[in-house]
Amino acid sequence: MRKIDVCFSPDLIHLYDLSDKCVVVVDIFRATSCMVTAFAHGAAEIVPVEQIELCQSFREKGYLISAERNGITPEGFDFDNSPFSYQDPKVKGAKICVTTTNGTVAIRRSAEAPQLYVGAFLNLSSITEALNKWEGDALVVCAGWKGKPNLEDTLFAGALIDQLTGVYEVADDAALMAWKNFNVASKDMLTAVKNSSHVKRLLGLGIEKDIAFCLEVDRYDVLPELEGERLVNKKR
Amino acid sequence: MRKIDVCFSPDLIHLYDLSDKCVVVVDIFRATSCMVTAFAHGAAEIVPVEQIELCQSFREKGYLISAERNGITPEGFDFDNSPFSYQDPKVKGAKICVTTTNGTVAIRRSAEAPQLYVGAFLNLSSITEALNKWEGDALVVCAGWKGKPNLEDTLFAGALIDQLTGVYEVADDAALMAWKNFNVASKDMLTAVKNSSHVKRLLGLGIEKDIAFCLEVDRYDVLPELEGERLVNKKR
Repeated sequence: MRKIDVCFSPDLIHLYDLSDKCVVVVDIFRATSCMVTAFAHGAAEIVPVEQIELCQSFREKGYLISAERNGITPEGFDFDNSPFSYQDPKVKGAKICVTTTNGTVAIRRSAEAPQLYVGAFLNLSSITEALNKWEGDALVVCAGWKGKPNLEDTLFAGALIDQLTGVYEVADDAALMAWKNFNVASKDMLTAVKNSSHVKRLLGLGIEKDIAFCLEVDRYDVLPELEGERLVNKKR
Repeated sequence: MRKIDVCFSPDLIHLYDLSDKCVVVVDIFRATSCMVTAFAHGAAEIVPVEQIELCQSFREKGYLISAERNGITPEGFDFDNSPFSYQDPKVKGAKICVTTTNGTVAIRRSAEAPQLYVGAFLNLSSITEALNKWEGDALVVCAGWKGKPNLEDTLFAGALIDQLTGVYEVADDAALMAWKNFNVASKDMLTAVKNSSHVKRLLGLGIEKDIAFCLEVDRYDVLPELEGERLVNKKR
């Protein structure tokens, strides 16, 4: 049977062989939830970059630009890191360059994989469908928070493993633990994440609305895939 | 309230500030379970080292020597990495030098902490008691398997957090997830770990007996503490 594993943090990515894997990068609060939302609202492409200055330089190439550091948006950017920000009409047809604290780092460090999708609860079924079609092993790369594992990305990994039962088997203990954590939390995800440090940090920023939104399952039927340096929606 | 956190792997240790923490290093299968067993059987001191050659050099200093790589003991050592190996009469009063795949690495990388204990299910209450006395924050460092998180070390971290409820609060999501995983597994730990990759790996080595032994709670009342380069039992 095909195997699925979970990397809890970009700081552990060196332990995984990506060369033959389909990688799903997840940063539930909020980078990958934002990207999925942007594609659902018609974004043409999204370029994830690690540096703020590099992101700024994309403006002169005709891109809209988006940045977040420590949950906050620096001045002079078109979007903040809220999924509601990407529901604006200006998103339709736009090329967007994005940099965030964790999510874009996780994407760049996973870029050597032959296939890379960006996942969130918002497009869980699209990701499930893509992995059902993929004929090799898979790895979920959790963005975490500054290298540390976090609950919500792990829960997404567990939810995906749960969807793939009978098709993929868990490769290692991290995947097993993610799955167990999801099983415990699945009935009431919002309550489950309320105790998480990351959510407490975000609630301090006044974004309760974002938290609930990012936990919605299958709101959007989009499949962001990395092609070279940019993400495109394979479901358009 | 004091805070307790969990580092899932020595490869994430750089993310944690050890300078004011009491660190508990755990490698359930089998390094720290062996060390606890050795102290319970009268070992005078244990020196954990990272390299096999360094370990061998301790023989001429009057030490018994122990080595394990990938679950197997190279030739020419006095002990293998089974807790039953350390129940031999020769352990009483002995100075022992140990090197293992994961556990000794985790100890060495955590050595800068002002206080370091070695924990296992076998001495869970001794560790709990020591942390009740410690007046600052605590960190459980899981040895994992070659940098990857594993189930059994995480379950120990969760068990310890569970014991310390009301005294310590969880510092971050890794601790929260460890605790949840323990709550799910606590009723039947042996069944819970049977699906773990690490246990499957060990069962391939024919050490079923070791697995059950290492999951016994509070068999021994010993407290291995790092003093300089060596571990000593603070409960003798």
